[in-house]
Amino acid sequence: MSKKAKTAIQPTRSEDFPNWYQKVIVASDLAENSKTRGCMIIKPYGYAIWENIQQIFDKRIKAHGVENAYFPLLIPLKFIASEAEHIDGFAKECAVVTHHKLEMDENRQLVPAGKLEEPYVIRPTSETVIGDAMSRWINSYRDLPMKINQWCNVMRWEMRTRLFLRTSEFLWQEGHNAFASPEESDTDARLMVDEYAKFAENVLAIPVITGEKTANERFPGAESTYTIEAVMQDGKALQAGTSHNLGTNFSKSANIVFQDKTGKEQFAHTTSWGISTRLIGGLIMVHSDDDGLQLPPAIAPYQVVIIPVVKNPEQADAINEYVQNICEGLIAQDIRVHVNKKDDSVGNKIWDSIKKGVPLRVEIGAKEMESGTLTHVRRDIGRDSKTNSSVEEFVSTASDILASIQTSLFERAKAIVADNLSDVADLDALQQLYKDDYQGLVRIPTSFIEDDQYKQLAKEFSLSERCLPFADNGSMVVIGRAY
Amino acid sequence: MSKKAKTAIQPTRSEDFPNWYQKVIVASDLAENSKTRGCMIIKPYGYAIWENIQQIFDKRIKAHGVENAYFPLLIPLKFIASEAEHIDGFAKECAVVTHHKLEMDENRQLVPAGKLEEPYVIRPTSETVIGDAMSRWINSYRDLPMKINQWCNVMRWEMRTRLFLRTSEFLWQEGHNAFASPEESDTDARLMVDEYAKFAENVLAIPVITGEKTANERFPGAESTYTIEAVMQDGKALQAGTSHNLGTNFSKSANIVFQDKTGKEQFAHTTSWGISTRLIGGLIMVHSDDDGLQLPPAIAPYQVVIIPVVKNPEQADAINEYVQNICEGLIAQDIRVHVNKKDDSVGNKIWDSIKKGVPLRVEIGAKEMESGTLTHVRRDIGRDSKTNSSVEEFVSTASDILASIQTSLFERAKAIVADNLSDVADLDALQQLYKDDYQGLVRIPTSFIEDDQYKQLAKEFSLSERCLPFADNGSMVVIGRAY
Repeated sequence: MSKKAKTAIQPTRSEDFPNWYQKVIVASDLAENSKTRGCMIIKPYGYAIWENIQQIFDKRIKAHGVENAYFPLLIPLKFIASEAEHIDGFAKECAVVTHHKLEMDENRQLVPAGKLEEPYVIRPTSETVIGDAMSRWINSYRDLPMKINQWCNVMRWEMRTRLFLRTSEFLWQEGHNAFASPEESDTDARLMVDEYAKFAENVLAIPVITGEKTANERFPGAESTYTIEAVMQDGKALQAGTSHNLGTNFSKSANIVFQDKTGKEQFAHTTSWGISTRLIGGLIMVHSDDDGLQLPPAIAPYQVVIIPVVKNPEQADAINEYVQNICEGLIAQDIRVHVNKKDDSVGNKIWDSIKKGVPLRVEIGAKEMESGTLTHVRRDIGRDSKTNSSVEEFVSTASDILASIQTSLFERAKAIVADNLSDVADLDALQQLYKDDYQGLVRIPTSFIEDDQYKQLAKEFSLSERCLPFADNGSMVVIGRAY
Repeated sequence: MSKKAKTAIQPTRSEDFPNWYQKVIVASDLAENSKTRGCMIIKPYGYAIWENIQQIFDKRIKAHGVENAYFPLLIPLKFIASEAEHIDGFAKECAVVTHHKLEMDENRQLVPAGKLEEPYVIRPTSETVIGDAMSRWINSYRDLPMKINQWCNVMRWEMRTRLFLRTSEFLWQEGHNAFASPEESDTDARLMVDEYAKFAENVLAIPVITGEKTANERFPGAESTYTIEAVMQDGKALQAGTSHNLGTNFSKSANIVFQDKTGKEQFAHTTSWGISTRLIGGLIMVHSDDDGLQLPPAIAPYQVVIIPVVKNPEQADAINEYVQNICEGLIAQDIRVHVNKKDDSVGNKIWDSIKKGVPLRVEIGAKEMESGTLTHVRRDIGRDSKTNSSVEEFVSTASDILASIQTSLFERAKAIVADNLSDVADLDALQQLYKDDYQGLVRIPTSFIEDDQYKQLAKEFSLSERCLPFADNGSMVVIGRAY
């Protein structure tokens, strides 16, 4: 292998995509596996991305009248038992709390003690507990709509886990809304998936296919499930956010009843909708390259990193002051800037910023200081974008450069979708495509999924129905492999 | 009872303080008990207070270089077992996860299944798991200081619970910092308790006694525990935030070792520090009155509530537009304003705003609209502060009025401390005071707590050592009853 081809991440995407994914996470210091089975530690740099996701999305949902609240982590077993349909879905694999203390046994070993009369389950999702609260809080049509969200941890006992994409514990927001009519709940479920789509595209620079899940893929108990599906660089789909119109299925089991304007008792129509730390996995697999992470400026913890290049220790103070002035100019525009003052070599700092996907890197040494300039490099373009410019020019154009990086990442991501979404006319064509080792998604007329041949092919090539895109009004379905 | 004496909250504070406390929470819609034993549901209005606490305090700790992260909810039992001292403290009463799924038994009952080889404990605090991570993350003096915080839920199986003050699950921040020297860790532990004191006084308008815990009251395993103690209206103390200098006690059991500048391996010196949803209990017991909650403007979800008074439906649009213009003027100054447009009577809306402790209430009807004015009332003063003023004047002085309310609540709270903190010269004087049904705290020379007579009196009157105030340099100790 020639020296030129050496990349910061080994293996490369084309050599081994799943392994590359793990290596990007390590190199960018986002997260790591913990000693708790299947659970991750989200490290500061990874958590800062999640904080940005929370802050930006939280504002959007509050603008729709959603209020945040907090419900208990532990769900009484009887709540779960009352949700028969729920159980048939995902709720069987969950962490069960059976004891409420620890004791030393005769061998001086700590053992569970204080057996509970009724076990509790750590919430895999909170429909049951929030439904129970709503049954008390909602009495009249005047109480509707009610829109409640919580940002919290949830737990599902996963056998095979992968950082961010599938972990036993993860962080998410779960919204639970209740309405007086079926029209309102369906409109709301569509509104929230539309918010997810806007957030994915405008903030995360991830283009998504927005649509409805087929009956096979619907959330258990939902009348309809709406989804955003993103396309990764390896051609697989990532379900990146879902919104469910639950009709009266959950309000009936939780007894969420209201008196309508005529005094008649009616069941509320509910929705639920969620996005999670899984989005960070999507960010990695859509934008990163063989040198590591790339982050869209809108979500990056630091949009600009400044690396002071101090060759002569006597100049350190002057350079630091020069750097500080530039920082002030950027901070005044709400640009997130980080000065890397670590006790480390300039080369290491440059590679660190590349692997961490900081959108814009600035290098400042004595030469720059003396000429009133700085050197900046775009992460999305690399050394070809290396530019020396005056401080004034840089400070006044930095937000434009960041906007240009945001657009460039989104355009690249759109090209990934275009390269990995093929229209096929029938199942024979689909079969031929995957036989030829096609890795992407296909779009075919919806009627084909009733076909036995489809079921066989789906099994053979590990395909699943991603969604019926809204753009096709249900006439087409997108199928493929998924995370 | 005369009509005048009728208050919104029954019983009053003087009649039954603990019951009054619960009633204030119900009337202000902050939280409620859940069907999960000992756990609360934090309702939107209560959670909005917590969100403000988080946002304001988070900025302060980030200014000190603290980074947020997220660690697993479940702690392997072996981690707990390795912390012998830990166990002797609070960690025995905790929720234990022993199974990882549910199954239907022969009677179609859901039962725990999939027994785990090693049980997990739901974190009562995260010293062990964060210490384990730090043992991997810290290698050299260059990695220090390391300052990690998480905002999360924790769980301690409490037998007697009270909303916000003591619940099995609660929300908090737990900071865990590591340093190269004992001086740095002690300075840091003091710095963080000082941050708590500033936050309590400047934001929550709660004056606090800041000091060090006596050996009796120290966090298990800590070299020193620093605390802020607030004084409630019933004279009891509330421990409102603690910061521990753990020395090398935790780094030794977690093996947090670094190579110093001379190449020698040394144990790191660590601290931990936390505040929780308990602060909301303190806000209630310090500021509220017999008509319900009172919130300091700096932390109130809404600083101003506007109640439109529409007697003639034809004027509704005009009044709403008039109200909207006033809102814009307040929002432009970052004042949090809420218009109560509910389908409810004006009287109910006024009482709702009083019971919820909104600092400033504005009433606007046709009369006000026609004269270009509005009527406003301060929650801390009540009807005596009712003022009709021009819109221009109100909008330009609203932030001053809010600042004045903030100050007034703080001054009142300082008077509570003054009324409930008595200096006593010796133990006989202390005994006489509590025999005379004194409910407050006392300050006595520290040497007395070694006395047998003190131990007996402490037991008889349920007194505990709150702290050695910094202001007295360890010569005095504050003693009293506490939540």
